[in-house]
Amino acid sequence: MKTNPPHTYVHGYSRREARRLLDQAQTLTDLLHHDTGYPAGCRVLEAGCGIGAQTVTLAGKSPGALITSIDLSEGSLAEAEARVKASGNRNVSFLQADICALPFADGTFDHIFVCFVLEHLPDPVSALVRLRRVLKPGGTITVIEGDHGSAYFSPDSDAARKAISCLVSLQKEKGGNALIGRELYPLLSEAGFRDVTVSPRMVYVDASRPELVEGFTKQTFTAMVEGVRDEALKRGLIGEAEWDQGIRDLYRTCEPDGTFCYTFFKGIGVK
Amino acid sequence: MKTNPPHTYVHGYSRREARRLLDQAQTLTDLLHHDTGYPAGCRVLEAGCGIGAQTVTLAGKSPGALITSIDLSEGSLAEAEARVKASGNRNVSFLQADICALPFADGTFDHIFVCFVLEHLPDPVSALVRLRRVLKPGGTITVIEGDHGSAYFSPDSDAARKAISCLVSLQKEKGGNALIGRELYPLLSEAGFRDVTVSPRMVYVDASRPELVEGFTKQTFTAMVEGVRDEALKRGLIGEAEWDQGIRDLYRTCEPDGTFCYTFFKGIGVK
Repeated sequence: MKTNPPHTYVHGYSRREARRLLDQAQTLTDLLHHDTGYPAGCRVLEAGCGIGAQTVTLAGKSPGALITSIDLSEGSLAEAEARVKASGNRNVSFLQADICALPFADGTFDHIFVCFVLEHLPDPVSALVRLRRVLKPGGTITVIEGDHGSAYFSPDSDAARKAISCLVSLQKEKGGNALIGRELYPLLSEAGFRDVTVSPRMVYVDASRPELVEGFTKQTFTAMVEGVRDEALKRGLIGEAEWDQGIRDLYRTCEPDGTFCYTFFKGIGVK
Repeated sequence: MKTNPPHTYVHGYSRREARRLLDQAQTLTDLLHHDTGYPAGCRVLEAGCGIGAQTVTLAGKSPGALITSIDLSEGSLAEAEARVKASGNRNVSFLQADICALPFADGTFDHIFVCFVLEHLPDPVSALVRLRRVLKPGGTITVIEGDHGSAYFSPDSDAARKAISCLVSLQKEKGGNALIGRELYPLLSEAGFRDVTVSPRMVYVDASRPELVEGFTKQTFTAMVEGVRDEALKRGLIGEAEWDQGIRDLYRTCEPDGTFCYTFFKGIGVK
């Protein structure tokens, strides 16, 4: 498996991207994490913590657990550490490390947590196998991923679907897989985990849920698609007029008669 | 709004179709109806009961309610009546009637239930307006619909997606809308209902859920797509080789490493 250097992260490392990740984390916390929690005293590895958007939730929901959060990017780690410190949580230690070359002995951790990471890796099964090595027998791995092919909306729009497919294509070119959510069950199974259970977490947005219209459809999903505009145009994946129409059509789904659907997948496996 | 005569029902009236509807009803009962129930003594209209696949559940879950089930097709009504009688439920009366010309006075019913019907109507808002007339003020309407654009799976397959799109196209030609699930909120709102709430009911299938692999992916969804093979080929919507590949690919998602996703939508509005 190749190392996945920071510069290939499809969403980039801008300030706007950081804000998007935080908006996303806050809006989706309950949906994704209402059932995330680890007992006091156990050792938990968060693999790929990024800027700590999920780390704050993880630490807050498992105040007695000893969490080790790793990431490839030093800059992201520093931001994550500052964010966790500001949140008042004191149960997280940070370490720059590569999922593909984990600096831990076999069976170091009671549990492993991986959120929005596998989608960026060229060989997710290999990453899961390496993570499994540092998990104790009987310990669990929890994996959360989105799936951009799960996005559909009203009014429907060919241009919007094509703009989304540009993001999928660019992520694929970088060795990732933006349609990975639907694959968690086979991936965890192939990596040797047992008792694998996958539960979809669907975000359904209509005008009766204004916080999701703003926090998810606009600030999270559409902002994420907009983030690859220049690259999509430069690579000739789509024409400028069609791109702009697609983005307008995504915003159109935020009107009072619009709806938007997207699904995250949470998978748990046992070693 | 035009009448929607029985011969335009996209799935036809064959024995296999009847079996498919029953398999579907049994597999999905909990997902769709765990929260369907009406108090004793109230009058409930089931609009478009078909062969009674949902009627048996409706009657069983609301044993004290007085249910009136209507349908356009005499043949379907006879079958529905026999099925409900066989189930031991005695709280349903059947009547041949058109949703677009309801033979009831204003405010006749406390609640209305409509399942897998609006998708076949050329003007669902008009139908909802007509149903609203026969509802008492303060009464509720419950609408359940699927959305074939919500189907995605692993392994992904262009041919399978194209086969599904044939069903969507054929239903559209007949005046229906196979992508209606995502539109329930705006449709109910436009028809004048208030306090509209829509909840998606996602069916997620992997090898750990063999009853859904068999009962949903194979017997319900893929069987439904297969049902329009001759018409899709006759209309030149797809080539025979590609169609057959698409169907094979849908069955391929039933292998141990496959997954399948589909979402129903349940909407409730108040008069």
